[in-house]
Amino acid sequence: MYRTHTCGELRLANQGTTLTLAGWVQTVRKFGAITFVDLRDRYGITQLLFGESLQAQLDAQPLGREFVLQVSGVVQERSNKNPGLPTGEIELVVQSFVILNASAVPPFTIQDDTDGGDDLRMKYRFLDLRRNAVKKNLELRYAVNRSVRNYLHENAFMDIETPFLIKSTPEGARDFVVPSRMNPGQFYALPQSPQTFKQLLMVSGYDRYYQIVKCFRDEDLRADRQPEFTQIDCEMCFVEQEDILNMFEGLVKRVFKDVKNIEYSEAVQRMTWEDAMWQYGNDKPDIRFGMKLSNLKSAFRKSGQLLATGELINGAGFGVFDNAETVLAIAVPGCAEYSRKQTDELTDWVKRPQIGMQGLVFIKCNADGTYKSSVDKFYAEERLKAIADSAGAVAGDLVLILAGREEKTRKALSDLRLEMGKRLGLRKDNEFKLLWVLDFPLFEYAEEENRWVARHHPFTSPKPDQIDTMINNNPVIEQAAEYLAHPYANIKANAYDMVLNGNEIGGGSIRIFQRPLQEKMFAALGMTPEEYNHKFGFLLGAFEYGAPPHGGIAFGFDRLCSILGGSESIRDFIAVMLDAPSTIDAKQFDELQIQLNLKP
Amino acid sequence: MYRTHTCGELRLANQGTTLTLAGWVQTVRKFGAITFVDLRDRYGITQLLFGESLQAQLDAQPLGREFVLQVSGVVQERSNKNPGLPTGEIELVVQSFVILNASAVPPFTIQDDTDGGDDLRMKYRFLDLRRNAVKKNLELRYAVNRSVRNYLHENAFMDIETPFLIKSTPEGARDFVVPSRMNPGQFYALPQSPQTFKQLLMVSGYDRYYQIVKCFRDEDLRADRQPEFTQIDCEMCFVEQEDILNMFEGLVKRVFKDVKNIEYSEAVQRMTWEDAMWQYGNDKPDIRFGMKLSNLKSAFRKSGQLLATGELINGAGFGVFDNAETVLAIAVPGCAEYSRKQTDELTDWVKRPQIGMQGLVFIKCNADGTYKSSVDKFYAEERLKAIADSAGAVAGDLVLILAGREEKTRKALSDLRLEMGKRLGLRKDNEFKLLWVLDFPLFEYAEEENRWVARHHPFTSPKPDQIDTMINNNPVIEQAAEYLAHPYANIKANAYDMVLNGNEIGGGSIRIFQRPLQEKMFAALGMTPEEYNHKFGFLLGAFEYGAPPHGGIAFGFDRLCSILGGSESIRDFIAVMLDAPSTIDAKQFDELQIQLNLKP
Repeated sequence: MYRTHTCGELRLANQGTTLTLAGWVQTVRKFGAITFVDLRDRYGITQLLFGESLQAQLDAQPLGREFVLQVSGVVQERSNKNPGLPTGEIELVVQSFVILNASAVPPFTIQDDTDGGDDLRMKYRFLDLRRNAVKKNLELRYAVNRSVRNYLHENAFMDIETPFLIKSTPEGARDFVVPSRMNPGQFYALPQSPQTFKQLLMVSGYDRYYQIVKCFRDEDLRADRQPEFTQIDCEMCFVEQEDILNMFEGLVKRVFKDVKNIEYSEAVQRMTWEDAMWQYGNDKPDIRFGMKLSNLKSAFRKSGQLLATGELINGAGFGVFDNAETVLAIAVPGCAEYSRKQTDELTDWVKRPQIGMQGLVFIKCNADGTYKSSVDKFYAEERLKAIADSAGAVAGDLVLILAGREEKTRKALSDLRLEMGKRLGLRKDNEFKLLWVLDFPLFEYAEEENRWVARHHPFTSPKPDQIDTMINNNPVIEQAAEYLAHPYANIKANAYDMVLNGNEIGGGSIRIFQRPLQEKMFAALGMTPEEYNHKFGFLLGAFEYGAPPHGGIAFGFDRLCSILGGSESIRDFIAVMLDAPSTIDAKQFDELQIQLNLKP
Repeated sequence: MYRTHTCGELRLANQGTTLTLAGWVQTVRKFGAITFVDLRDRYGITQLLFGESLQAQLDAQPLGREFVLQVSGVVQERSNKNPGLPTGEIELVVQSFVILNASAVPPFTIQDDTDGGDDLRMKYRFLDLRRNAVKKNLELRYAVNRSVRNYLHENAFMDIETPFLIKSTPEGARDFVVPSRMNPGQFYALPQSPQTFKQLLMVSGYDRYYQIVKCFRDEDLRADRQPEFTQIDCEMCFVEQEDILNMFEGLVKRVFKDVKNIEYSEAVQRMTWEDAMWQYGNDKPDIRFGMKLSNLKSAFRKSGQLLATGELINGAGFGVFDNAETVLAIAVPGCAEYSRKQTDELTDWVKRPQIGMQGLVFIKCNADGTYKSSVDKFYAEERLKAIADSAGAVAGDLVLILAGREEKTRKALSDLRLEMGKRLGLRKDNEFKLLWVLDFPLFEYAEEENRWVARHHPFTSPKPDQIDTMINNNPVIEQAAEYLAHPYANIKANAYDMVLNGNEIGGGSIRIFQRPLQEKMFAALGMTPEEYNHKFGFLLGAFEYGAPPHGGIAFGFDRLCSILGGSESIRDFIAVMLDAPSTIDAKQFDELQIQLNLKP
């Protein structure tokens, strides 16, 4: 070893010891004939003191930032202690040193508050990774990894590797494909998830499987979507939904404890998908704060019923509300005194293209019991009060109301709720609230094709008491306008999402394990027997040989880490150092027997 | 849960308990009005007793092999105990049962001694995976995984994920490539190893990195080569070779302890590459037994010297030896009494195409002190004795001698040695012998191109005292015939292989960390600055900003598991379920902007 100790471990107890350190020069401070250097490694920073006898050598070989140094010397107590540093009570009096490698002047400072912009830090990612802030993120990621593995091991899960070079079965996102040199004209695909493989492992009786595994989706890039991403992928035999919920809220609680030292002792809240949509306009609600939606008028069917028909607002002559499919409100606490400028700014906020609403209606619930609204001329004060009451507003609140098409309006008010929560400081970084969202619809309606698509994926089971409904009905939708009346529209999935602070961190389902039901599902999605046998014949075949009931879940590892680390950017938690893709050479094309076919 | 207990946990202490199990029907045995069923899950087998009251239900719903069953009942002591089974003292008296899923008759029996052939078992791999023998392999693999992670964690290594969609830099094996839809005409490559990424992580100061990670090589398939394989990949900062050897023999010893309960307390033997080649004809010798090679005549240069010039054998008129570049011998203990038939069979063995020698010479060292040889007419008995002595033979031994071209002969005699070791029972399954092979040549000579290639990879450092030799000499080989006289021919690598029972299980090196030396290496391999900057510019650039000394190792995880599991087939330790590659559809070609260019 080039060192006897790390830069993070020396304390007063080491006083008088002669030892050797190696690391990077963080700073050089020269005071007359004495030079102080902060030496950094992964474990910490130690102050080095170069006395007068070394100055000639230092003059001949000047140290610069990020030089790699090996130093030997004696530990002594500092006169000027730094209580902010674990090694702040000591310094190393250097007796000899060797420059192991020099460094060019780095393009930005290797500090928490660096002077490097995003692009520069990405270009020199290997230097960015030296910064303490980034290092802490990767350390947190490893801590989550370790915690997850320990918990799953203790619960009899086995890490079993599944293949990466598989068959292309695009269903949902696009596959990345890999030309096979050994089988010209044929391609492998990279897995979007190990879904079918883990199900086969259950059929093989492995009982409890997990993997922390790379998955691939050829999607257009977004900040929170990478073409490759990591899942914590799990599957269990002989379980019902309740077993999965218990096992995996245990997992997340264990991670909280191990990584954040948070005892999450309360039960994880549960909410149906319908309640989430009804109360929060969103299937992954942030329940750190209230401000629930009030449904003044809605086309959303809850338990198959139209619950908000608009009595409170219809017929007052306000066409925007009268003609709207949906009118929804939230009561923002303590904002009744917003100025005209402030309410105008909120109106502009909802009119931005990302939200895309036409306008915003507000009611101020004044402290004196009066009500003031942007639609005063249509609604008398007592009607305004009734509307505000129905939104759960109290004196001092500001009621915000959006109207328009169902889906868009619900999403817009959900976004506005989150924005107001953020502005009011209700979404606290150090508060973590878990939520299970349950009872999703099994199918979604694809308007363009007038057919059903799987909301989760085609392997998700319906609720046990709805299997007969699924088997005994024809999935074909005879009349597009009446699709909500089709029995399939009300089938609920045996599926669950885990939500943390408004982010979906995991999702899964109890799987179909009977061949006839799986075939019915494929048929419901519009596949012919030829198609589903070509794509999924291996799974259907396996279901004939004693497939057990099973279910599982997959967590987005990157996102889980970023939320625990208090960041919105997944990239901060990946050691990305990308210099790809690039061209390949003629020999590679020749061997693969493919060529480019670029569009003009 | 569909069960309260597993099929592996019930003991006499559970007697009288009412409980529920779920699993697969292993066997059904009917005795009059009573039926015994062995129920199997991952954890074991429990005997079920179906009494008279259930026979009507059983008749209506007959159980078959591999049916999935849920049973409730009471544990009772068996009258007929099975001491071979952990659950053999009890049985479950069934009170009620549910068939959770039926099974077609499996195409082979789910037993250790199955009646299924290789092809059938591969076709129905999901059923093969149910067999105890295969399950034990995957359990062993997970145990190795867990043990490795625990050891590395305790030694401050961090699991850091590196990217899978990278830049193609073919150097050695072929890359698998992935067309990029977002960047038409460009391709990603799948990593052959995370080599450059882990080096960048060292430059970034992560100090100790590891990953158990999939790697990809587009090679022609062999039994022990899969297109995707798993490495235990490790790298450390501020280390010399000695540190790596100590750390990673510690790792393998820990795996022995955790997985095989073997205390490997002795020091791991070390051997130079030259000694391995000289004494065993092989750079990964099986040192569980002796039978070392005797070099009667050899072109192999040990420490730059020709050590075996052939005095003992030359000039006797035996042209095969006189004209041979190389003559090598082994002394096989106790085989002097081999019959003519047996020596003929050995001659045939070395003449097989896989070995490809012209013939085999033997000397029998008889118990009475006489010598008998297939070349009696050229060599007098005392000369035979001298040859046999030089091969270390004693009375009763059979000396086997091969002659021919250096490389081929050395490999052939190495193979013959292993074969004889196997036949004599000297290669014991339950004996594990580790060996470090050190001091490999840094370069190999590529005859066709008259240039150097990297024996390990281009990032391997020469021995510290040979860096100057490398820097200060022109790598160009002026005269092909004299390549051995080139200073580069004698440069040794700071590299090491770990060998277990004659198999290379891991290999690595201390890396180059100085830009000028790395550039010299690329130049030595025949790359122009344009080429190496295009392929490895990111690494060279990183070396300018304070790269620390570092080194690492990678273990072949699949092979390590197969050796520990006592199998020669890596496939037995992978949950392969391959149904790939396959064709892709026109839409995929269109989006990727590529087309086939199949050769006629």
